[in-house]
Amino acid sequence: MRGVPPPPDKRITQPDSVYFSFPKLRWSVCHLRQLLPTIGISRGLGAPVPLAYADDAERERLQQGIDALTFEPLDGRPPMTWAQSLAANYTDGILVLHRDRVVYERYSGCLAEDGVHAAMSMTKSLTGLLAQILVTEGALDEHARVVDIVPEAAGGAYATATVRQVLDMTTGVRYSEDYADPDADIWKYSAAASPLPKPAGYEGPEGYFEYLAQVQPEGRHGEAFHYKTVDADMAGWLVARASGRPVNELASERLWRPMGAEQDASMTVDGIGTPFAGGGLSAGLRDMGRLGLLMLDEGVIDGRRLFPAGVVRRIRAGGDPARFGTAYPALVGGSYTSLWWVYPGEHEVIAARGVHGQTIYVDFTAQMVIVRFASFPKPQNTLIDPTSLPAFQALASYLRER
Amino acid sequence: MRGVPPPPDKRITQPDSVYFSFPKLRWSVCHLRQLLPTIGISRGLGAPVPLAYADDAERERLQQGIDALTFEPLDGRPPMTWAQSLAANYTDGILVLHRDRVVYERYSGCLAEDGVHAAMSMTKSLTGLLAQILVTEGALDEHARVVDIVPEAAGGAYATATVRQVLDMTTGVRYSEDYADPDADIWKYSAAASPLPKPAGYEGPEGYFEYLAQVQPEGRHGEAFHYKTVDADMAGWLVARASGRPVNELASERLWRPMGAEQDASMTVDGIGTPFAGGGLSAGLRDMGRLGLLMLDEGVIDGRRLFPAGVVRRIRAGGDPARFGTAYPALVGGSYTSLWWVYPGEHEVIAARGVHGQTIYVDFTAQMVIVRFASFPKPQNTLIDPTSLPAFQALASYLRER
Repeated sequence: MRGVPPPPDKRITQPDSVYFSFPKLRWSVCHLRQLLPTIGISRGLGAPVPLAYADDAERERLQQGIDALTFEPLDGRPPMTWAQSLAANYTDGILVLHRDRVVYERYSGCLAEDGVHAAMSMTKSLTGLLAQILVTEGALDEHARVVDIVPEAAGGAYATATVRQVLDMTTGVRYSEDYADPDADIWKYSAAASPLPKPAGYEGPEGYFEYLAQVQPEGRHGEAFHYKTVDADMAGWLVARASGRPVNELASERLWRPMGAEQDASMTVDGIGTPFAGGGLSAGLRDMGRLGLLMLDEGVIDGRRLFPAGVVRRIRAGGDPARFGTAYPALVGGSYTSLWWVYPGEHEVIAARGVHGQTIYVDFTAQMVIVRFASFPKPQNTLIDPTSLPAFQALASYLRER
Repeated sequence: MRGVPPPPDKRITQPDSVYFSFPKLRWSVCHLRQLLPTIGISRGLGAPVPLAYADDAERERLQQGIDALTFEPLDGRPPMTWAQSLAANYTDGILVLHRDRVVYERYSGCLAEDGVHAAMSMTKSLTGLLAQILVTEGALDEHARVVDIVPEAAGGAYATATVRQVLDMTTGVRYSEDYADPDADIWKYSAAASPLPKPAGYEGPEGYFEYLAQVQPEGRHGEAFHYKTVDADMAGWLVARASGRPVNELASERLWRPMGAEQDASMTVDGIGTPFAGGGLSAGLRDMGRLGLLMLDEGVIDGRRLFPAGVVRRIRAGGDPARFGTAYPALVGGSYTSLWWVYPGEHEVIAARGVHGQTIYVDFTAQMVIVRFASFPKPQNTLIDPTSLPAFQALASYLRER
């Protein structure tokens, strides 16, 4: 959106059916705060701690080498170079760290080094990291039932789920995202969560938490992994209640301030100021890289420990692959735990994933972190994985042979 | 607003008739971005440049001395101490710089050193400063007519006003703020400027600029000062067109980045992303102090010149007191120019003023800058000046005698 004012045919406005439609979403992912109320994740007032960089000559050489890497897409398309994959995946920004140093960094689309980008469902992994920190430190009991921590949930299906089931998305709660069904839960959820004034006569729940308190049961807790945003929002409620702080404040206190973030981040909110723990984060690319480093180095950044090593070890240990199912063809044999994806295969990989191709991809075997912001036209990682996962594996092999 | 979620009787929500009512406004002034879409004024990615502070012992001594200062309110109330005036004026944060060093700093209400506060009409002076920089540097001709710079204004009253008349608020345009009149211009303006989706069937202007293009004439341009927010919004349009950047981006480039700001600031926006140049700014207290220093030191901060000295000299020179009128009893004999208040009296004082008691008050004679954020219950500076201006003058005398 450019011009003062932008011409009518170029305007990007509410509602989300407009601003998240392609190609408008390619702008919106960098400018969510102009469209929605938000709450800050403060970096504090100190000086940022710069990331370490490979020296210029080495970075130049690595950049050329990485751009020329070839791989075979998983969907039968002909071999592709790394450089070609960036365009194929509508990449807006990508940062690669190897052994804690930046070896590759590119910005395109709407993103620049001093901008922020919508993380979408990578937000869940931020919430999950905070939850796992509280669990490991003993402030949140993973065996407790939700109702023991959040008494307001007593009347709904979440009451009897354990904290661990919420964090692993194995709860048995009803949540249909069938957009063609006017009675689908997603509509009631969207209405509750909208920060816009409620329509006259609205009598549904107000905000994320009132919605979560009345969710109905479906299936049995602990039986199977079903990916659903509401579990991450419930995790946000647990985190807030156990720590006494909303997710955004805890993220500032435990991560953004001590990790020397370069930029404040933000989260979208509902109509009563609750941050959207399941998808509301916008952040800078390098700050997401700092989160990736904290995962790779098990809680340490720039020589300082921000949380116990057990936090990352618990996530790396994964959930139960038998419960994972087959909904994500590229990830069968993997799992989902503490709101992080744990990949199958010989490399030890964990990841945060957003629905338009955003990722923090941590390969422990290769000592590599990839952070990518993207705005793929369709919200389907099954279309993005085929030109991403083999590229990431090719890069891991290349860096290991440096 | 506290609690996860906050209890229903404590919730602060849209619309502004709720969140800007007292006492809710005492929270809202620090949390506008949770209620409204905003656009950032980036501080960039570098380290902040700390303000200089008087040493601890001297600051302790000065703080006690300042708190004990007494003055006579202008409205006949009995003498009051400086410390008492802070509560009387619902002060949320106050910073005093003398000879470029911080000598006094307090936070209360909703504000902390790492928080931001609504600047309200102090935003106008930020817009005016940017406009004056462009004028002094030759990028904006103060003698040009609005229509020469913004051709879209051709059909309305602003077309024939000069840039200088806009910056001095001596335009002859119709803009009634009679809240009791359902046909008052303020309602049409609010509807156009709202970032919320327009009601079904809405056919009025979309956003600040479409509204400004159709404003009708009333009186003659250049005849008299009438304080009206629309002139500041028109100044924002002129700034954006002359510089090729929206006000928030220019503020970042010319001020926030080079002055070593500690925090990003933000501005509320209309439904198509236009920053509210007449009132949308939220910023940190110390960053407003940096703006005050730039005025006091005529464009120099931390030894670096950010804009020509002529910018501040032009503002200090003032507008025409004969056109100023009597609407502001404490300021009769003063003037308003480049969207700054120029005070009458022996001290040379210029100020930015917000409607709930916010101010940047620069006393050149005393080499003093006072920055105050406040949330006075009523939006009337005529109620706040009586316990503010004599306090500021008493402080100036005290500091001159150090």
